[in-house]
Amino acid sequence: MTRSWVPGADESLFGLDNLPYGVFSRPGEAPRVGVRVGDHVLDLAPVLHDEVFAAPSLNPFLARGRTAWRETRARLRTLLADENGHAGARGSAASTGGNRAVAEPRLIPLDQVTMHLPVEVADYVDFYASLEHASNLGRIFRPDDEPLKPNWRHLPVGYHGRAGTVVVSGTPIRRPCGQRMPGPSFGPSVRLDIEAELGFVVGTPTRLGERAGAFEDHVFGVTLLNDWSARDIQAWEYVPLGPFLGKSFATSISPWITPLEALEAARVPGREQDPAPLDYLRRNAPWGLDLTLRVDLNGETISTPSYRDMYWTPDQMLAHMTANGASLRTGDLFASGTVSSEGAFGSLIEMTWNGAEPIKLADGTTHAFLEDGDTVTIAATAPGGIGLGEVTGRIISATDSTYTATEC
Amino acid sequence: MTRSWVPGADESLFGLDNLPYGVFSRPGEAPRVGVRVGDHVLDLAPVLHDEVFAAPSLNPFLARGRTAWRETRARLRTLLADENGHAGARGSAASTGGNRAVAEPRLIPLDQVTMHLPVEVADYVDFYASLEHASNLGRIFRPDDEPLKPNWRHLPVGYHGRAGTVVVSGTPIRRPCGQRMPGPSFGPSVRLDIEAELGFVVGTPTRLGERAGAFEDHVFGVTLLNDWSARDIQAWEYVPLGPFLGKSFATSISPWITPLEALEAARVPGREQDPAPLDYLRRNAPWGLDLTLRVDLNGETISTPSYRDMYWTPDQMLAHMTANGASLRTGDLFASGTVSSEGAFGSLIEMTWNGAEPIKLADGTTHAFLEDGDTVTIAATAPGGIGLGEVTGRIISATDSTYTATEC
Repeated sequence: MTRSWVPGADESLFGLDNLPYGVFSRPGEAPRVGVRVGDHVLDLAPVLHDEVFAAPSLNPFLARGRTAWRETRARLRTLLADENGHAGARGSAASTGGNRAVAEPRLIPLDQVTMHLPVEVADYVDFYASLEHASNLGRIFRPDDEPLKPNWRHLPVGYHGRAGTVVVSGTPIRRPCGQRMPGPSFGPSVRLDIEAELGFVVGTPTRLGERAGAFEDHVFGVTLLNDWSARDIQAWEYVPLGPFLGKSFATSISPWITPLEALEAARVPGREQDPAPLDYLRRNAPWGLDLTLRVDLNGETISTPSYRDMYWTPDQMLAHMTANGASLRTGDLFASGTVSSEGAFGSLIEMTWNGAEPIKLADGTTHAFLEDGDTVTIAATAPGGIGLGEVTGRIISATDSTYTATEC
Repeated sequence: MTRSWVPGADESLFGLDNLPYGVFSRPGEAPRVGVRVGDHVLDLAPVLHDEVFAAPSLNPFLARGRTAWRETRARLRTLLADENGHAGARGSAASTGGNRAVAEPRLIPLDQVTMHLPVEVADYVDFYASLEHASNLGRIFRPDDEPLKPNWRHLPVGYHGRAGTVVVSGTPIRRPCGQRMPGPSFGPSVRLDIEAELGFVVGTPTRLGERAGAFEDHVFGVTLLNDWSARDIQAWEYVPLGPFLGKSFATSISPWITPLEALEAARVPGREQDPAPLDYLRRNAPWGLDLTLRVDLNGETISTPSYRDMYWTPDQMLAHMTANGASLRTGDLFASGTVSSEGAFGSLIEMTWNGAEPIKLADGTTHAFLEDGDTVTIAATAPGGIGLGEVTGRIISATDSTYTATEC
């Protein structure tokens, strides 16, 4: 580990080997790009003398491409490295002490800033890449069929979600209204759920009609994502064109995007696939990721699913998504689908087996699906003491007085 | 009809009662907003002295809302009205002759301009609103089941598409590659199809968590849309999460957005619905539209489906899409789904009954699905001599040398 002079950074999950990017503001100031070090955010535009970081989203920086991402990361590691560390450019004009003098005045405690949506999301795609999750959902939604559809082991099944309702962690989640059975009737969802996922953020675009190149040339980094799901709405609407209003009311992401470079130590080959995928889905490099997620409900950990055993890896998702010539744009976000592993699930519908076996919390409450006032927080850690920023959200009532629209 | 001094306008489908908006450029000049009059485009920024029309998309103008849309249209009608017409502000300082003097120098023949994508598309949603189309596709894709799923008459079924691959009319459409049965194998689609649709463009946004208000307060206008579809890819991938790569390679729209105000004479109550929809889907005003589409394949008309008998009207689609609190953004595009009416279909899969009954053209060729080199053009007319701008596209080979990417 390279040590940093930033107080607390080395002991945190946000040391020099992490350095995730986000968009922050202080009261009365414009949102701009920063990088997280420990419990501080470094204000990048003045430190790096680069107006790309004065933008209210990461998109202009992401559009610069992989070489720029690497160079920026190397400069930041130098700026933030301790005098006794090994990341500094020894003997260079910019000494470590000089680096600290430049950066320290631009280091702001996290509790003094507001975090914003880090990326202006172009298209949002959600996959369905966990064998355990897809099998469990198949058993629950289609009890009389084979749990996996015939295509599932041949391609990473996915669909487009609503980019405009991707929100930053902390945004209150209004319980959605919708049409559901029996009846059908219209009213507040009574089966509100989470899906704990990883999201992958695209930096480098492609031209219409061409397939994407290597995963690491296009994808900048990783975020945590909660794909809130109204199971009653989804179950009634989803045939034959897929999930729509059961998902589109909100998708929360972490304010922090961890660069792929920070996850080198987490890379694993990915789960064995049978049958072997077609050539265009062949893995050319290990992009499985040894990440452990943690799902907390009202402050109590209820599941710790592992990402490393996901069936489809994110490089395969990218190859599939562009195999037909669909172009990528800077800001595209694609997600893994619910991360469920053997015995550790990423959704309540699995943890409670469709509500039949409610979760009992230490505070004495039981939870089948989400109640108004419930707070869900998803976090994750990677080898090497790396944390992904948390994604959290609290459920507010469908009839909350914040909203002026017609009630359900 | 109010007459215009613009040569040919009154005899065209683009007279004073139409006035659709688009984004055009001349060689070496920046794209900007214009309005179509006959076979000319009026360059709006200098005529109206308003920089909102110097933008490379309609979005900034759309964001101004309905009152601004109405005022602009009224000003344009005054500017373009003939001295003997009745649209001019009689006796005002800006006499009709003065109006002509202002506008005429900014009138550019269409054959001197390039048209661009008129709207920066935020989210793209595609519905499935024709009873005939949904029934036919059900029979073809699921021959052993009821053609309509149980939810179909209760809600307008829809899904999100790929906003980043919405392209302007005239963009060449590369035949997509993809995974399909038997096998599965990977290669160029052999069942490439069209879907003739109407697209509705949102101007006025909503807040997350709130439902949309009246249709005409949010929706600016209408465009023609071709939802290119690779039926072989779609058939294999679409369970259980809906169409993805079978659609996401390209969606073409007309360069012209016809304001709702131009379609007053086309408004009809909409087809009777049984069962009556739930309250949140109740029609509060007639937003069925008496439009007739025309589908041409290689210059020959092969179908003339009617929009007026669509089961779900666009106001119902908007109400449904936002019923869960999903926010709208300026630039959102939602489409009707294939417009098929009794005996006049908007897709080849219906016209040829899944390829079994190929279309014979006058040139002696037969067509089950689209061949490389085929050109499809969709047009539409409304009562009152109103035309929607055409949407056209030509299929180019999956291995066309324009592209540098890996071949299939």
